[in-house]
Amino acid sequence: MSKRDIANLRRWHVEAAQRARRAGYDIVYVYAGHDMTMLQHFMKPQYNQRGDEYGGSLENRVRLTREILTEVREAVGHECAVAFRFSTDELLGEDGLQAESEGRDIVAMLAELPDLWDVNISGWENDSATARFEPNEGYQEAYTAFVKSLTSKPVVGVGRFTSADAMVSQVRRGLLDLIGAARPSIADPFLPRKIDEDRFDEIRECIGCNICVAADNIVAPIRCTQNPTQGEEWKQGWHPETIEAAASDDPVLVIGGGPAGLEAALQLANRGYAVTLAEAGETLGGRVSRESELPGLASYARVRDYRENLLRQKANVDIYLGNRLSADDVVELGIPQVLVATGARWRRDGVGRTHYFAIDGVGQVEALTPDDVMDGAEVSGRVLVYDDDHYLMGSCIAELCRQRGHEVCLLTPASIVAAWTDYTLEQEKVQARMLDLGVEIVVSQEIDSLRPGEAEIVNVYHEAYRQTLAFDTLVLITSRLPQDELYQALLAQEERFDTLRAIGDCHAPGTVAAAVYDGHSAARHLGSGEDTYAPLFNRELPALD
Amino acid sequence: MSKRDIANLRRWHVEAAQRARRAGYDIVYVYAGHDMTMLQHFMKPQYNQRGDEYGGSLENRVRLTREILTEVREAVGHECAVAFRFSTDELLGEDGLQAESEGRDIVAMLAELPDLWDVNISGWENDSATARFEPNEGYQEAYTAFVKSLTSKPVVGVGRFTSADAMVSQVRRGLLDLIGAARPSIADPFLPRKIDEDRFDEIRECIGCNICVAADNIVAPIRCTQNPTQGEEWKQGWHPETIEAAASDDPVLVIGGGPAGLEAALQLANRGYAVTLAEAGETLGGRVSRESELPGLASYARVRDYRENLLRQKANVDIYLGNRLSADDVVELGIPQVLVATGARWRRDGVGRTHYFAIDGVGQVEALTPDDVMDGAEVSGRVLVYDDDHYLMGSCIAELCRQRGHEVCLLTPASIVAAWTDYTLEQEKVQARMLDLGVEIVVSQEIDSLRPGEAEIVNVYHEAYRQTLAFDTLVLITSRLPQDELYQALLAQEERFDTLRAIGDCHAPGTVAAAVYDGHSAARHLGSGEDTYAPLFNRELPALD
Repeated sequence: MSKRDIANLRRWHVEAAQRARRAGYDIVYVYAGHDMTMLQHFMKPQYNQRGDEYGGSLENRVRLTREILTEVREAVGHECAVAFRFSTDELLGEDGLQAESEGRDIVAMLAELPDLWDVNISGWENDSATARFEPNEGYQEAYTAFVKSLTSKPVVGVGRFTSADAMVSQVRRGLLDLIGAARPSIADPFLPRKIDEDRFDEIRECIGCNICVAADNIVAPIRCTQNPTQGEEWKQGWHPETIEAAASDDPVLVIGGGPAGLEAALQLANRGYAVTLAEAGETLGGRVSRESELPGLASYARVRDYRENLLRQKANVDIYLGNRLSADDVVELGIPQVLVATGARWRRDGVGRTHYFAIDGVGQVEALTPDDVMDGAEVSGRVLVYDDDHYLMGSCIAELCRQRGHEVCLLTPASIVAAWTDYTLEQEKVQARMLDLGVEIVVSQEIDSLRPGEAEIVNVYHEAYRQTLAFDTLVLITSRLPQDELYQALLAQEERFDTLRAIGDCHAPGTVAAAVYDGHSAARHLGSGEDTYAPLFNRELPALD
Repeated sequence: MSKRDIANLRRWHVEAAQRARRAGYDIVYVYAGHDMTMLQHFMKPQYNQRGDEYGGSLENRVRLTREILTEVREAVGHECAVAFRFSTDELLGEDGLQAESEGRDIVAMLAELPDLWDVNISGWENDSATARFEPNEGYQEAYTAFVKSLTSKPVVGVGRFTSADAMVSQVRRGLLDLIGAARPSIADPFLPRKIDEDRFDEIRECIGCNICVAADNIVAPIRCTQNPTQGEEWKQGWHPETIEAAASDDPVLVIGGGPAGLEAALQLANRGYAVTLAEAGETLGGRVSRESELPGLASYARVRDYRENLLRQKANVDIYLGNRLSADDVVELGIPQVLVATGARWRRDGVGRTHYFAIDGVGQVEALTPDDVMDGAEVSGRVLVYDDDHYLMGSCIAELCRQRGHEVCLLTPASIVAAWTDYTLEQEKVQARMLDLGVEIVVSQEIDSLRPGEAEIVNVYHEAYRQTLAFDTLVLITSRLPQDELYQALLAQEERFDTLRAIGDCHAPGTVAAAVYDGHSAARHLGSGEDTYAPLFNRELPALD
């Protein structure tokens, strides 16, 4: 950057702040965080190797930030506050900014310049850590607690706060003045009000899965595992807390108490329908109950707990556990509106992202699925985990097997472990954990054929590159199929029902977020007469000059 | 998909076609190509494993396409044509559709249903193959030539056609009726007119680099290596063929005849300026002349040839080769408007995507850069190519060294070879070629330190995983630095000039496309008084209901 570039950057900041002020904003941010802004880059000797007054000493590296903070402060006047977002630490040790050294020094140098300090850790994967890697609220405390001791200005911080106790503790102990909570507010935009009104058990707690972040990374509409209305408030008119009253007095039968069934039952109950929820197992939750037992996924149980707790309080909901319905049972019940949420099961034949047909020889080996492992199937000796799913399950199963003392080889056609978790900011942490645990990692190879005790694998780029991997136990994690036998049997007599719809994984296996969304959507549309498979929604219309 | 889903899909196709017709379109497409449409997916047994009348036999797998073609044909009336895009082959052998079997059968089955056959190969990486992997025009001929023999309807096809001879040959030999050319039209929207008017040497030929495709894949505004006006026609009012007349009679000096300098000189000449182009070397082209000598990159020479040819015909352009100017020389010339396009050189210290500082021990080993190799430096024995750049250079240097008989190890911190070429649809082909050539590939490892003859490398995910790689020759391909000594010396006496600007790699090392764009932009803005570093441009403004 030339001096002219720097002058331009300063001017653009001032002009942007003035525009924001004219547009009516009360707070304007100056930003040095997430390893993504020029101001933070100027602070870091890793990036800033200038020889002039903007490089070298810390004073010089902070000069641009000081100038912009001062100029923006002057530009917006005193009816508008200037907040400064600053990452005190990058969790990179000596390769990055550290709270115990320059991170602290920078806060001291700029202490009184902003009106509000907004402090966190960097990069985004550390700031928005998932529950798998940061299970506790307030996990940034060790890096930001010092800030209040160096400034008289108010301080706000984050840490996936979802409970009033944890928030109050931060304030009472003098660590923060204001609680920031982005993901928890995505999961429940009414979080502050529910705390204010002592409605604690109505809080939809963020589970820290970063599906919201993934939507950003794949340039798709935002989704939230806990809050299916997220992003649909304007597009479909879905309010996070209110829902249209029932269209009729018809009772509704929901079959299956997993994520889709629970959400559908809850929202139908909120609409005033008389809801019968039939669950084949002895507990509610379906896949989230099972998966929350896996290493790192405990928070998924919140998807069940929030809904089960509210459903148990509803007078218009009957829950039947241990209640596996046949098609004849359903017909006999005579309920005209039926949602089938019987979930999905992992395939046993190896069909997944890479294999369109059953893997050659799969019938000759005893392959386990994740369902088998979660059901307690015996795992012995060296375990070969074949991950052609690429999201959470492969590394969770590998971790579980290592915890139990098995030698584990994690094989995937992707070039990295758990490739899809790149979108949830977890990939590097997952692969590091696998290496920490001593899991053998084999990437960019697919299974070509199976024989008892060994897999012939082939390089995904070149079929001449082949090798053999031995195993005692093989776990195939490839894709899932709907458990829709009941739905298909009912579909054959569709005329008996006013509504008959498969929802969630039973309709199309996907993320928990997708199942919750589908259950919610089915409940919203029930009785509306709309084609719920092709909902119209509001769109921004471009106007060209 | 249920039968209702299928009925919906058919209805949506019809409704969409009717909307298109109402909006005034003359041709509506039905699409079964690029492995991305439902119709193609229904055709493929790899995806379609249905047991009903839409699965099983080829007749059944084509049923949905036949229905939709028929229904869309009926829906749009006879003032609108229905074209059918169909990929006859997927280049997957028995794992995909093949032109010699079902691809051909499908054309025969649907022969007279569409008004126009638009045929190609699939997926996108085969259809839009780069020049590196498909150097010749008409490379799809072997897969689409049969189509005309099976239908009386006109047939259009593609194959990166840029020359009239190749196009005419297709028509004369009865292979195609119409020539499709998307990328060549991006490079030159006036391609048809220039052929029509016998202005062949004014055609800006597509170089087949797929930078246009990369923009799509990274969700960025489209760019073209050859045509810098692409995507700027409305945003900035840049016409591909016309440009504003000179703002003054001042002469202009362009220093450096690489991509940025050539484009700037050409457009300044088009504006009517008296242009002096000074090039230190004995030939024009700069980096594209050097890089076009590498395996697979020959087409980059077109960036030079198109511009040099036109510049040589201009009366208002003086080209000086072998003319290395010092700052004193430039001052002495007394030309008030100066653009400095002296390019960039590869770093020798290992600083790149992964290393922010010089690699430990780099001073103790004799490391080559790509510039050294292109300049003919001696390469001996086992070559370790360290690619921390991740685009073209690493695999091209590796290929060159293998061609010369060296043992080659290609080491990269990325998890795949030439990771950035994923965006240009080349990555799988690059990695396959490396394996074909017997290059040893080491991924997800960075160099931790260097000693004579060996590199200690460390896993990018976990510092405990280390190993040593031996080499006789080390090539470091990490990042580039501007060759801007002349520019900096002139900047110290900036007051002598009306315009003094570094352009292209000398301003900011990047792609050839970025350099051409920067040279074009500088020529457009020269004398305008606008701040060319922050151009305003037209944007779509959303209007909310």
